Amino acid sequence: MKKLLPFLEEDITTDRLEAFSDGVLAVVITIMVLELKPPQGASAEDLTPVIPILLAYILSFVFIAIYWNNHHQLFHATKRVTGGVMWANLHLLFWLSLIPAATAWVGEHPANHWPAALYGIVAFGAAIAYFILLRVIIRSNLDVGIHLAIGRDMKGKISPVLYLLAVILAFVNPMISYAIYALVAAIWIVPDRRLAKG
Amino acid sequence: MKKLLPFLEEDITTDRLEAFSDGVLAVVITIMVLELKPPQGASAEDLTPVIPILLAYILSFVFIAIYWNNHHQLFHATKRVTGGVMWANLHLLFWLSLIPAATAWVGEHPANHWPAALYGIVAFGAAIAYFILLRVIIRSNLDVGIHLAIGRDMKGKISPVLYLLAVILAFVNPMISYAIYALVAAIWIVPDRRLAKG
Amino acid sequence: MKKLLPFLEEDITTDRLEAFSDGVLAVVITIMVLELKPPQGASAEDLTPVIPILLAYILSFVFIAIYWNNHHQLFHATKRVTGGVMWANLHLLFWLSLIPAATAWVGEHPANHWPAALYGIVAFGAAIAYFILLRVIIRSNLDVGIHLAIGRDMKGKISPVLYLLAVILAFVNPMISYAIYALVAAIWIVPDRRLAKG
Amino acid sequence: MKKLLPFLEEDITTDRLEAFSDGVLAVVITIMVLELKPPQGASAEDLTPVIPILLAYILSFVFIAIYWNNHHQLFHATKRVTGGVMWANLHLLFWLSLIPAATAWVGEHPANHWPAALYGIVAFGAAIAYFILLRVIIRSNLDVGIHLAIGRDMKGKISPVLYLLAVILAFVNPMISYAIYALVAAIWIVPDRRLAKG
Repeated sequence: MKKLLPFLEEDITTDRLEAFSDGVLAVVITIMVLELKPPQGASAEDLTPVIPILLAYILSFVFIAIYWNNHHQLFHATKRVTGGVMWANLHLLFWLSLIPAATAWVGEHPANHWPAALYGIVAFGAAIAYFILLRVIIRSNLDVGIHLAIGRDMKGKISPVLYLLAVILAFVNPMISYAIYALVAAIWIVPDRRLAKG
Repeated sequence: MKKLLPFLEEDITTDRLEAFSDGVLAVVITIMVLELKPPQGASAEDLTPVIPILLAYILSFVFIAIYWNNHHQLFHATKRVTGGVMWANLHLLFWLSLIPAATAWVGEHPANHWPAALYGIVAFGAAIAYFILLRVIIRSNLDVGIHLAIGRDMKGKISPVLYLLAVILAFVNPMISYAIYALVAAIWIVPDRRLAKG
Repeated sequence: MKKLLPFLEEDITTDRLEAFSDGVLAVVITIMVLELKPPQGASAEDLTPVIPILLAYILSFVFIAIYWNNHHQLFHATKRVTGGVMWANLHLLFWLSLIPAATAWVGEHPANHWPAALYGIVAFGAAIAYFILLRVIIRSNLDVGIHLAIGRDMKGKISPVLYLLAVILAFVNPMISYAIYALVAAIWIVPDRRLAKG
Repeated sequence: MKKLLPFLEEDITTDRLEAFSDGVLAVVITIMVLELKPPQGASAEDLTPVIPILLAYILSFVFIAIYWNNHHQLFHATKRVTGGVMWANLHLLFWLSLIPAATAWVGEHPANHWPAALYGIVAFGAAIAYFILLRVIIRSNLDVGIHLAIGRDMKGKISPVLYLLAVILAFVNPMISYAIYALVAAIWIVPDRRLAKG
């Protein structure tokens, strides 16, 4: 049977999975801009309601950028893509694809509880999906020492906890949630910056 | 004459066909999210009408993901891309590109007969297009033993039958159709999961 | 001076130009589907106004698919990409990017003169842009015998003439124009089919 | 520690960064076409309000095309991608992703001060981001002589100055701003044309 199914048995290379993920993330990050609808009028005041939408866009742009960055580095170290890796990756893309809708809701109702909470739920889902993807990849690439490369992954473990906290605190004050989302983004960006000089 | 047309005679490699298909599928899978419009209000109740749209989105996300997965594996085993393969592939992409519109209609009218039936018609069209693509690829790649790799393709044969059934039963109760669509998705996912451990 | 500008002097490979073109064409072909808005109601009759939009979509899908196909084969034979090739390619992409808007107008007003004529103007612009791209590529790739590969290019010369005819006849009866657009598409598809068996 | 983090220490190749950038730019350049909404009616007069939108689209298409062109050539000469390069590139993509929204505002209110000024602010942001990207790349690729390849970069230095001027003059007459935007585009296109013959 094995001999009859060479292309199914054979492990898939990371090339096309990365290309597809890049495509999805490129569309996700750009499609959000459709929410940046031109103001009704043409004066400076007409730009005022656009400001929270722009801020939400910036937050989500950085959010997706961080995932693309991590995704890039993770698959750079991945040698073997199994069916499980494939689906774990699609699961992550699913959560990330919900970001534009969550961003739009936050941008239109920045002072309300539920949009801020929902944003955190989507971010939490993406963080868990990334964690699962990491585990599945490690399990399939143990021999190439990928677990050593990934290390203790503190940021990956602390992020979902912070997101959950933000979901709960959204019902106290949405501004606290936004501060937490910005904090998580900062945690992920800083070390990447450090690496650039390393 | 043959000598004068080197680039037309020469068989095209799968690289760019895969890249273009990845691009189209990435846009299709992400463009659906545009239907996930932010709720009008900002309370939890405002999320209620979004639920069927979200469920329809999940179904279609998995649907496109399965096709991308199969497409990936199929072209991994394909050595020769002829004009016929090119057009059979574009024919498949055409049907898949209709999924966002069908998804939107289902999401907005989940309890009605016609949207559920139309979704099945598009899914049926895609299944037939995939079947044709498979035949065309096999015919052009017989020498590399691709027919052995593909095997009896039971799932590919049973899927269109189930979709047709769902189209008919949509006029009895759309919920039956949705159950069938979920069932077909499950049939395709399960073995991919198994492969991951194989 | 030449030594100081190594990366500008050096001819660019076709890889990234093809990747970018694939990306643009993938978005163009898929973005048209956004016009396939779900019908207002949920009955079969609600699908009636969608029919001309669907037909216009099919025409344009085939139109873009043909260009992608030709583009693919053309750059397969191209060895040298100069700045001129780059801009001639972007010029072609510009005209093709107008197809979704022209398609939407035709789909909403299929029986009117101007939408049918405008569609032809965009198609004419794309045909001329493709002709220019071909000339620029030939001029930069003479040594690799590309002019022999392309041959007399009868179809490339007859298409813009037919499109111009369709623009004029749109003011007699738009249906004639649509017939001509379908005819041009048929002219381009048929030989590709023949090649598949060649 | 270094040994335990092989994939983080290792410099990332330019391949996937280019692929992602191509994806984002392809979506940005194509998504603008969604603003080219079909006219309400079906007569020639209905096309009149579309004209400024079309002109704004052409300007922005050329604008993005120039950036893609420069980006392409810059990364062609880049050997080493550090975390800093990654984020500088994402920063550039961020500004470019705002172009569709700025274009839509200009297209709908071509005779007003603020839309014309905002367009210039976004263009200025992109020019600065490109300048930063250039510096970061040079700093990480000094040994491969990239600074010699880039030269004095006069155009890169004059563009932001002209954009700032356009922002200010938008409050005198928006038409002056548009003339400046067209002028900057012309400055960038011309030498690329010259290269084609070089």
